[in-house]
Amino acid sequence: MHATAPTSTLYLSAPVMAELIGRKGVGQCIASIAACIHEDFLRWPQFEKSARTANHSSEGVIELMPISDATTYTFKYVNGHPRNTRLGLPTVMAFGVLADVATGMPQLLSELTYTTALRTAAMSAVAARALARPDSRVMAIVGNGAQSEFQALAFQHLLGITTLRLFDIDPAATAKLVANLEGTGLQWMACTSVAEAVRGADIVTTLTADKARATIVTPAMVEPGMHLNAVGGDCPGKTELHADLLRQASVFVEYAPQTRVEGDIQQLPADFGVTELWQVLAGHQPGRTHAAQVTVFDSVGFALEDFSALRYMRDAAIELGLGERIALIPALADPKNLFGALHQPAATASQRVTGPGAVA
Amino acid sequence: MHATAPTSTLYLSAPVMAELIGRKGVGQCIASIAACIHEDFLRWPQFEKSARTANHSSEGVIELMPISDATTYTFKYVNGHPRNTRLGLPTVMAFGVLADVATGMPQLLSELTYTTALRTAAMSAVAARALARPDSRVMAIVGNGAQSEFQALAFQHLLGITTLRLFDIDPAATAKLVANLEGTGLQWMACTSVAEAVRGADIVTTLTADKARATIVTPAMVEPGMHLNAVGGDCPGKTELHADLLRQASVFVEYAPQTRVEGDIQQLPADFGVTELWQVLAGHQPGRTHAAQVTVFDSVGFALEDFSALRYMRDAAIELGLGERIALIPALADPKNLFGALHQPAATASQRVTGPGAVA
Repeated sequence: MHATAPTSTLYLSAPVMAELIGRKGVGQCIASIAACIHEDFLRWPQFEKSARTANHSSEGVIELMPISDATTYTFKYVNGHPRNTRLGLPTVMAFGVLADVATGMPQLLSELTYTTALRTAAMSAVAARALARPDSRVMAIVGNGAQSEFQALAFQHLLGITTLRLFDIDPAATAKLVANLEGTGLQWMACTSVAEAVRGADIVTTLTADKARATIVTPAMVEPGMHLNAVGGDCPGKTELHADLLRQASVFVEYAPQTRVEGDIQQLPADFGVTELWQVLAGHQPGRTHAAQVTVFDSVGFALEDFSALRYMRDAAIELGLGERIALIPALADPKNLFGALHQPAATASQRVTGPGAVA
Repeated sequence: MHATAPTSTLYLSAPVMAELIGRKGVGQCIASIAACIHEDFLRWPQFEKSARTANHSSEGVIELMPISDATTYTFKYVNGHPRNTRLGLPTVMAFGVLADVATGMPQLLSELTYTTALRTAAMSAVAARALARPDSRVMAIVGNGAQSEFQALAFQHLLGITTLRLFDIDPAATAKLVANLEGTGLQWMACTSVAEAVRGADIVTTLTADKARATIVTPAMVEPGMHLNAVGGDCPGKTELHADLLRQASVFVEYAPQTRVEGDIQQLPADFGVTELWQVLAGHQPGRTHAAQVTVFDSVGFALEDFSALRYMRDAAIELGLGERIALIPALADPKNLFGALHQPAATASQRVTGPGAVA
């Protein structure tokens, strides 16, 4: 081996990630990823950004989300298939890679199904800290599926939410959410309609999964001073908010070129005024300016949030000694001689070493 | 486990791929992948295609190449860093995934560093079968790096090339190529310039790696009836052929929207006439029309070729019982209850089963 750069990749499987999250705690993971997201959003101009690529089918969508700064590249693979649960599969599944910009070497391959749930909740909390009323204590959660517990904990830990008003068209989903929140100290009320859940809430979080132009929240439901955290509308043809609601509110987005295609604002003209959240975090643009203002975070999920989550998970895995090293890339005795490596079985076999290890 | 769909992913590491290729043979792998490419190119209109996304830095580029048909989605991660060999790393490293369009489940995660070399050579041979003179026996190879042996074997096995004229600015590269070709039956001649290598060749294959606007082959070197297999110019700012040579030849490409950005034709106006190769393979457009015609395959590498290679490697691995199953996606007792899985360590630990297995 003449190699001076490592050719192995740290691998975090879904079970290993579950162990990592269990040891750190869900609340701590969300808070730490929120800190990474906030930090990275302040460096927004340093990133090479693009709207994600999406391959659509009648059943769902598969997306790739790349982003890089001067030293680190990441991408996420993520699907959205609302009917997957009938097959025993999650609606959203994901994994991703963190790589070295200087060489292209993939340094980390990680599950991102659990991690996407954490980072989506963290992103919502980062936005709400800038946009919701500081005295917000009551949050409605419309759609009580796989993302709902993570949002509840994020808003409890990072916003001070104490009470949840819950609605789902499937009462079993709400029952699952309530069971999972036992012991968190959160108060909750199960509601029988969206309108009832939204009534009196300081923050309204929408997490519906149908790939359809839905109108979950209408202008009549909205009260002065509300912050809407609209997470479910994230795909062409998949919306949650009535267009008039958007017109009457102040709308904030992650990355405008992507949100105009995928977010609730896809219903509005391309010149509809929105503010990119990083501008608010950096102090370039105002967030909420008065207590009666209605704010909307039209969240679709942007690659930078996965960049932040991947670097947190890499550091946490190294700290805890979790993960194994895999040979995704060949270790070549002579990197100019790829063909020769195919005829040196001993040399390639020496690469089969796995076990806990650090990203160099 | 209530899951009815498998949540494990077949994983082919670089050493396992080296074993697979060793057992099948390089020539057989290239021939089989060429057959898959030809078959898939005939189904061209059935694919959802896009130009790859590229993140550029001063040292190189990292690209994502997604594509899908109605049932199968694939993507490849690939870098290009010409100075990597100084660090003991390959210039080009790659891996990829094959997934189920109906659910988004990643079914195969595979190394693609070796496989990219095989599929690039296979693609060149598929193009040359349609474009080179059938009596071609002599091929020049300009650039004798990591891709050169694969091209030599592909053209020997699939085109009937018997003699190579070799040139590289680094004589050690040529010596490596010649050593690796021992026992193949190929005749070779080491040349001291590009012009000498090209002289008298039926086919000219250019495989240079510099990320620069180079002019490796000029119009004066080109003889009537030649086929140019231009593989190295595959990135904005990275070219190999003189623009006048392109203007005087018949130019064929993989996917025009991508090649106009990345290929040698980036030097020419956006309306420069080119023919997509699939049109020739399908009989919609002529390839070579007379013996004196100069043809150019301005190859940049398109996602469909990786789609073809991934499905071949999946089938070969299953046939040979190679690979192991990994838990990239969590196996959830209740797919609607992601949060609950984080509090069931026993359930997630049961997923740690690995070993040879088939893609379901």
